[in-house]
Amino acid sequence: MSRSFDDRAPTGASPPPTVGMVGGGQLARMTHQAAIGLGVPLRIMVAGPDDSAAQVCPWTRSGDPHSADDLVAFATECDVITFDHELVDLDGLASIDSSGSAAVRPPASALAFATDKAHQRRVFSAAGLPLPAHRISDDVDEVRTALDELGWPVVVKTARGGYDGRGVWVLDDAEQAEALLAELADGSDLPELIVEALVDIACELAVLVARRPDGEAVTYPVVETVQVDGICRETIVPARIPAHAEADACELALEVAELVGAVGIIAVELFFDGEVLAVNEVATRPHNSGHWSIEGAVTSQFANHLRAVADLPLGATDVVAGAVVSANVLGHSDGRDPRHHLGDALAVPGAAIHLYGKAPRPGRKLGHVTVMADTVDDARLAAHRAVAALGDPVPDRP
Amino acid sequence: MSRSFDDRAPTGASPPPTVGMVGGGQLARMTHQAAIGLGVPLRIMVAGPDDSAAQVCPWTRSGDPHSADDLVAFATECDVITFDHELVDLDGLASIDSSGSAAVRPPASALAFATDKAHQRRVFSAAGLPLPAHRISDDVDEVRTALDELGWPVVVKTARGGYDGRGVWVLDDAEQAEALLAELADGSDLPELIVEALVDIACELAVLVARRPDGEAVTYPVVETVQVDGICRETIVPARIPAHAEADACELALEVAELVGAVGIIAVELFFDGEVLAVNEVATRPHNSGHWSIEGAVTSQFANHLRAVADLPLGATDVVAGAVVSANVLGHSDGRDPRHHLGDALAVPGAAIHLYGKAPRPGRKLGHVTVMADTVDDARLAAHRAVAALGDPVPDRP
Repeated sequence: MSRSFDDRAPTGASPPPTVGMVGGGQLARMTHQAAIGLGVPLRIMVAGPDDSAAQVCPWTRSGDPHSADDLVAFATECDVITFDHELVDLDGLASIDSSGSAAVRPPASALAFATDKAHQRRVFSAAGLPLPAHRISDDVDEVRTALDELGWPVVVKTARGGYDGRGVWVLDDAEQAEALLAELADGSDLPELIVEALVDIACELAVLVARRPDGEAVTYPVVETVQVDGICRETIVPARIPAHAEADACELALEVAELVGAVGIIAVELFFDGEVLAVNEVATRPHNSGHWSIEGAVTSQFANHLRAVADLPLGATDVVAGAVVSANVLGHSDGRDPRHHLGDALAVPGAAIHLYGKAPRPGRKLGHVTVMADTVDDARLAAHRAVAALGDPVPDRP
Repeated sequence: MSRSFDDRAPTGASPPPTVGMVGGGQLARMTHQAAIGLGVPLRIMVAGPDDSAAQVCPWTRSGDPHSADDLVAFATECDVITFDHELVDLDGLASIDSSGSAAVRPPASALAFATDKAHQRRVFSAAGLPLPAHRISDDVDEVRTALDELGWPVVVKTARGGYDGRGVWVLDDAEQAEALLAELADGSDLPELIVEALVDIACELAVLVARRPDGEAVTYPVVETVQVDGICRETIVPARIPAHAEADACELALEVAELVGAVGIIAVELFFDGEVLAVNEVATRPHNSGHWSIEGAVTSQFANHLRAVADLPLGATDVVAGAVVSANVLGHSDGRDPRHHLGDALAVPGAAIHLYGKAPRPGRKLGHVTVMADTVDDARLAAHRAVAALGDPVPDRP
């Protein structure tokens, strides 16, 4: 997975750039941990002092990521602007870019792939990438035709605004489809929808790529993601897939990263039906499917995101254990605060606990647990035990 | 090295304590990284905003560690007080302890072992621990007698105030000894001195122990430390010593930790002459010889220090690679700023770079580099290359 940089010319003597991250969630929090190690100056634009990252980083500025003015003001304090989430004002980024006040990494054109699934599908389709069978439309009659053609059950997604299972529906029949269309229609207008054949998934995969501005890139090992109701519950490394699929997935991810023009980490989510791969969607930032890399890889996704956006040499992505499993801590329905059960979770041998400092709410991502072991089964067992102490138990899946 | 905690009772539902660390150096900086992961609230008492830890932690308070008032005031904001260095006012700690405003971990009685080498030697000697042949005295004639008895060359150390090679002299003959005694004598009084036979050292070792208030403890694998002019230049795991010495060193370290009454990390430095071990000295805090554990162990020394002082279950200390080498970045004599050469260091495959945000000065500890590899030789080679880009090259030692 890693490559040698022996052939690179020395980068010369200059201080690392000040990196500004827009968004103060757990991704920014964990990026701050990595920035401390590297000695790369990091500023974070947060919503307020209670944000996950604001609790642990001294160098924050409050701002609204939907406000071009706030983004432009933040950029004046930074050399590079990067993102904890993609929901930012693209006009603001264009201003920053054209004024040259900071380098926008990933560029707005790359973010557009993550925020607009229809755009993503169109570009990927034109490039000949393997995709699930799908149609894109904002017209009710066209959507009905697509539903007929693709058969049942079928997946409908909004092109914009979906997240963690929101904006995605699995429909069993025409009756459910009509109910959804009625709900989504605003007068005669529909939002742009993607209608997609339900892939008979053997497993869902993710490949993280770290990519520098000049296109130099490294891939992380393929991650198997276990999704329940559209939310990632756990990630498994190595993915339990054939070696040829592992290699193909990495190739595909590099192709996607180049097509998107990604800088920093891009997560490429894939479907695997046991034989062929299909690109599901991308996120142009550090990603939940890469949290395992903090303990489990030579270089974490957060360190490599910083290195990539700061245009510094990328780090090796090799796995340091036989198996690495990360499981998300989602808020328990009993409302428990995972911080109050930290001791029970730490008592699970080998469990590395990460809590994000967020107020507990049922189903909310409050942290994650990573376990390294010789086998996937052993790592899962321990990770599930620790998660069960902190939040909603991980459902039993193969 | 690790142990199972399956037999521990659940710790019950309570939030983790707020930990206050006295001192804002790189140890506090790296402790903050660990605290972010665990979600343990950490406050740091710093000298000022330029301190290594103050640059990266939002929750700091300025104070003088030699001021009892400052320590007492800091303790009112914390549940547990712990330390980045041992040079603190012990009366202040006694006040905190007796008022019960915070738990002092390690206790002042444990810190006294680190700040007073004569006390340390007396207690360890009374307990029958293996020590280098030595005499303790503040009397010029007694010191002369000791020098005669122990032969040349000989080591003289001040009981208090030594650090990184300061307060330690290797003397070749009586002439050098008289010159030193004349320099140290304040009228007829000498500071308390330890006169010590120069051990024919095969290697210097360190064993880190993490210990909870109830005495539960785990040891890290034995570290071989390479010292040059009294300063640690690199650490090597596994230490290149026989298996029986590895086991004996861990046993000895556990015995020392108990004798000292350590809470948190205690570093036990040992001499090994190829056959027998002798206790050199201890530090009752996270230690330079444990930096390798950030990448190289399942649980870093910083995470286990926090877990121990917060009275939470300790983490596994197993090594995750065949070999782990950390080398210190000391300021280069040419005055270069390592931050300006970060790219060159990151270009060394597998090198994890840690910079402390400190202003460069020749010989000053400005960071460290850790490399994991299959063999010690490969790890050293890469670590030395990365260090040479950033600061003073690591001298060539076997």
